[in-house]
Amino acid sequence: MNGTGSGDIRILAFAGSLRKASYNRALVRAAAEAAPDGMEVEIFGLEGIPLFDGDVEAKGFPERVEAFHEAIERADGLLISTPEYQHGVPGVLKNAIDWASRPPGKATILGKPVAIMGATPGMWGTARAQAQLRQALVYNRCPMVLQPEVLVAKAKERFDEDRRLTHDATRGFVRRLLEELGELVRRHAT
Amino acid sequence: MNGTGSGDIRILAFAGSLRKASYNRALVRAAAEAAPDGMEVEIFGLEGIPLFDGDVEAKGFPERVEAFHEAIERADGLLISTPEYQHGVPGVLKNAIDWASRPPGKATILGKPVAIMGATPGMWGTARAQAQLRQALVYNRCPMVLQPEVLVAKAKERFDEDRRLTHDATRGFVRRLLEELGELVRRHAT
Repeated sequence: MNGTGSGDIRILAFAGSLRKASYNRALVRAAAEAAPDGMEVEIFGLEGIPLFDGDVEAKGFPERVEAFHEAIERADGLLISTPEYQHGVPGVLKNAIDWASRPPGKATILGKPVAIMGATPGMWGTARAQAQLRQALVYNRCPMVLQPEVLVAKAKERFDEDRRLTHDATRGFVRRLLEELGELVRRHAT
Repeated sequence: MNGTGSGDIRILAFAGSLRKASYNRALVRAAAEAAPDGMEVEIFGLEGIPLFDGDVEAKGFPERVEAFHEAIERADGLLISTPEYQHGVPGVLKNAIDWASRPPGKATILGKPVAIMGATPGMWGTARAQAQLRQALVYNRCPMVLQPEVLVAKAKERFDEDRRLTHDATRGFVRRLLEELGELVRRHAT
């Protein structure tokens, strides 16, 4: 889809947490392993993306922000896994989206198909964070996968101590999410 | 209200932008100048608050985060001015709230009375960002000023080139907001 000639759909996946043992980073790794045939998932860590500052941006994108834009540019679609902090999107994730959305009208994320998911040790599966995340994607005119919704509650019971996904039903939902993202990418390919 | 013996209500004010010429930082300065008698407004800059990382937190709050918590602790109430990025709260601001909300159940922001406002060069006055910000404050059980809503649209027409507020009607709304915040602080003082 992206001119590599391989024919594979390329997905860029990232999680909205910097913590090494993050369940959302673990969910992204599980997704990469569960990807359907014909899809490659590249994982991008948000470490090193600085806090957005318009005065910094005026001098050009910082190196890691540039790398993030390049990774988005070469992807056919995005997979985002969000924790929920204080009923919303973590600042770490929103900050990355803020950079990805620059400059207005010409950002690499603009119109890129996206699937979202999220994991939490708590009960409500990141429902509120996902709703907020969709608002930022609406701004960026990103076509979004609407079903399945992948909300992983009680994450401690779904991953082992090495943060490997042990819950097959969750793996099935993640795989379906990626299949739908692939379908969305095909539908929006020009 | 806070044991200083001065009898003044102490408000901590911060804006969700790092940009020096930010309209929201300018709005915070205008608020500090417009504060009613019996109210002191301390301004806190979010520079130096790092991106939230649970692995960093496990070793203790970084210095600037500790300073932020101390500033919140000694305030009777908070005044927050938010830009709107991508239909929501800037990552920079949410990140600061994420730190302020730690540790869960014992955070300094918990139950603190809050007033919010926002400025944008655009048309919609940060309405969506303010709605998201309220969600994070609900999590933190913060009593909130509900009226007046201070949404400063077309900020270029409301501030001069030195970012001084030139629009008296806006100044009146900001002052009323602070009066209501003072009333909320008095009502929740124990």
